[in-house]
Amino acid sequence: MTPSTIVTLFDVQQAAERIRPYVHRTPIHTSSALNRMFGAQLVFKCENLQKIGAFKARGAVNAVLQLDQATAQRGVATHSSGNHAQALAYAAGLRNIPCTIVMPTSAPAVKRSAVLGYGATIVDCAPTLAAREATLTQVVEQTGAHVVPPYNDIRVIAGQGTAALELLEEVSDLDIVMAPVGGGGLMSGTAVACRGMQPNIDVIGAEPSVADDAARSLRDGVIHPAPTTQTIADGLRTSLGDVTFAHLRHHSVDIRTASEESIVEALYLVMERMKLVIEPSAAVTLAVLLEQPELVRGKKVGIILCGGNLDVRTLMHGVTVGF
Amino acid sequence: MTPSTIVTLFDVQQAAERIRPYVHRTPIHTSSALNRMFGAQLVFKCENLQKIGAFKARGAVNAVLQLDQATAQRGVATHSSGNHAQALAYAAGLRNIPCTIVMPTSAPAVKRSAVLGYGATIVDCAPTLAAREATLTQVVEQTGAHVVPPYNDIRVIAGQGTAALELLEEVSDLDIVMAPVGGGGLMSGTAVACRGMQPNIDVIGAEPSVADDAARSLRDGVIHPAPTTQTIADGLRTSLGDVTFAHLRHHSVDIRTASEESIVEALYLVMERMKLVIEPSAAVTLAVLLEQPELVRGKKVGIILCGGNLDVRTLMHGVTVGF
Repeated sequence: MTPSTIVTLFDVQQAAERIRPYVHRTPIHTSSALNRMFGAQLVFKCENLQKIGAFKARGAVNAVLQLDQATAQRGVATHSSGNHAQALAYAAGLRNIPCTIVMPTSAPAVKRSAVLGYGATIVDCAPTLAAREATLTQVVEQTGAHVVPPYNDIRVIAGQGTAALELLEEVSDLDIVMAPVGGGGLMSGTAVACRGMQPNIDVIGAEPSVADDAARSLRDGVIHPAPTTQTIADGLRTSLGDVTFAHLRHHSVDIRTASEESIVEALYLVMERMKLVIEPSAAVTLAVLLEQPELVRGKKVGIILCGGNLDVRTLMHGVTVGF
Repeated sequence: MTPSTIVTLFDVQQAAERIRPYVHRTPIHTSSALNRMFGAQLVFKCENLQKIGAFKARGAVNAVLQLDQATAQRGVATHSSGNHAQALAYAAGLRNIPCTIVMPTSAPAVKRSAVLGYGATIVDCAPTLAAREATLTQVVEQTGAHVVPPYNDIRVIAGQGTAALELLEEVSDLDIVMAPVGGGGLMSGTAVACRGMQPNIDVIGAEPSVADDAARSLRDGVIHPAPTTQTIADGLRTSLGDVTFAHLRHHSVDIRTASEESIVEALYLVMERMKLVIEPSAAVTLAVLLEQPELVRGKKVGIILCGGNLDVRTLMHGVTVGF
């Protein structure tokens, strides 16, 4: 890979300057109960409290703000049923440019209305990757829109790295920084920020055992597709791209996996002990620690809680009048 | 009522100094989505992020720290199945003195283990008010323990008032401050702080329509017992005491009510939009605004989110592997 496709700490620092007026500097939370439980100092970077409820706002804003005026005026587009859809719609709204989101018909109504709420247009497609890509190609041909990919893009990676940058600016002496791995955008940016700021920090990625394609890809030196197995961590069902794969290899990111049971338990723990709503993808890091507590015993550990877009109404159908 | 039984702003300020090393100065959160929805500036004081997950830590710590050494050494006691139990256990732990909690056998295991985790002793009783009081009397006779009541106590009221004190210190120009009303401890302390700091602020209490005893008590000038109707806001099922009743009357607190449906909707809104876990009792203020949005349109409103001890595992039984 050529140097121009490797994101540097300087790129992340420039992204931080660029996006600062448009995203939250998210707070850092701790829990004495969890610290006692793990015999460690756990420090949580709360990207669930970020704009659109997830770190994805950082990368999308960083990409959209860099478009020249002529490109921007033709609009931006992507295919996504998740947080990247909202993030790109939010970013496009900041420049008041058109935004088209190709969305599978299976996407929940709540996600559709969030995207529409940011002023974007939704184009429906069948719920397959082939249909998503074909529909996006059509949109681009018809509108001339610029595609902002969800993770396999150096502007997006640089933006996502700003979460770890803020964490390292505020918290000293971290031994380990952990983030979840889906397509690898957050993990790539996190690795760039950590290696650039404090090279001795252990950078650990977390993914579901039933979707361990990133761990296998790094082990085998080739990108494996994500298994079709469903994980509760719906944000982590994607495989690495060539750009993110290169970053994770370059920075020797250690990937650990956790079972679905541990992910659910970690989700409960964060909600009970920290009173924070997180999505299942954000619980995978703590789930790894539930299975491998020796990783962090006696250590100071930064954990990026990537998002909070949990489908509360569906999951809490137990909350009814007179329950 | 004699002057000595009225809590003053100075009492609240002294409480704030006293408890500062032992409780969190909780953060203030806002939500641009909720502001748009209500056409108002809503400012949330996050007592769900307080020690033991609720404001109750403030009052219990303020009471326990004022005990003379001889009294303290005989220990403290109360009857409670809720947040006051954990709060008193936490406060007693700070002084390393015995703490006995009389708890109905119907209390959930998770609350029991939390109390035990703070080092307190639990004495079981039948799940009736008569049994709770009789058992507590026995405990006091046997141990000489000092009873710290959950709300009808000037030390407790002064402590609870410190949440509003912090809110008013940090946020200027509030038109309205809202808090939920159960036994009236938080509401009394909130009224004292507001009237003492900025007398023109409207002080509004919120309670469930199906447990509207505080509204009826203030209207009729006599303390009505809490209805036996169950509300989802389990922390608000208690009636006022003579001390809290006197405070709410003295400060002309306006009480508004909300339906169970609105409370559930408000709970969802806070979890979805603010990514915060709150307990149903903490949703009642926003529930009032869902039913009476004209109360706050164009205004700047402080809302005390009283606690976050939601029974996540029971309510989210929908979260299972492969969901």
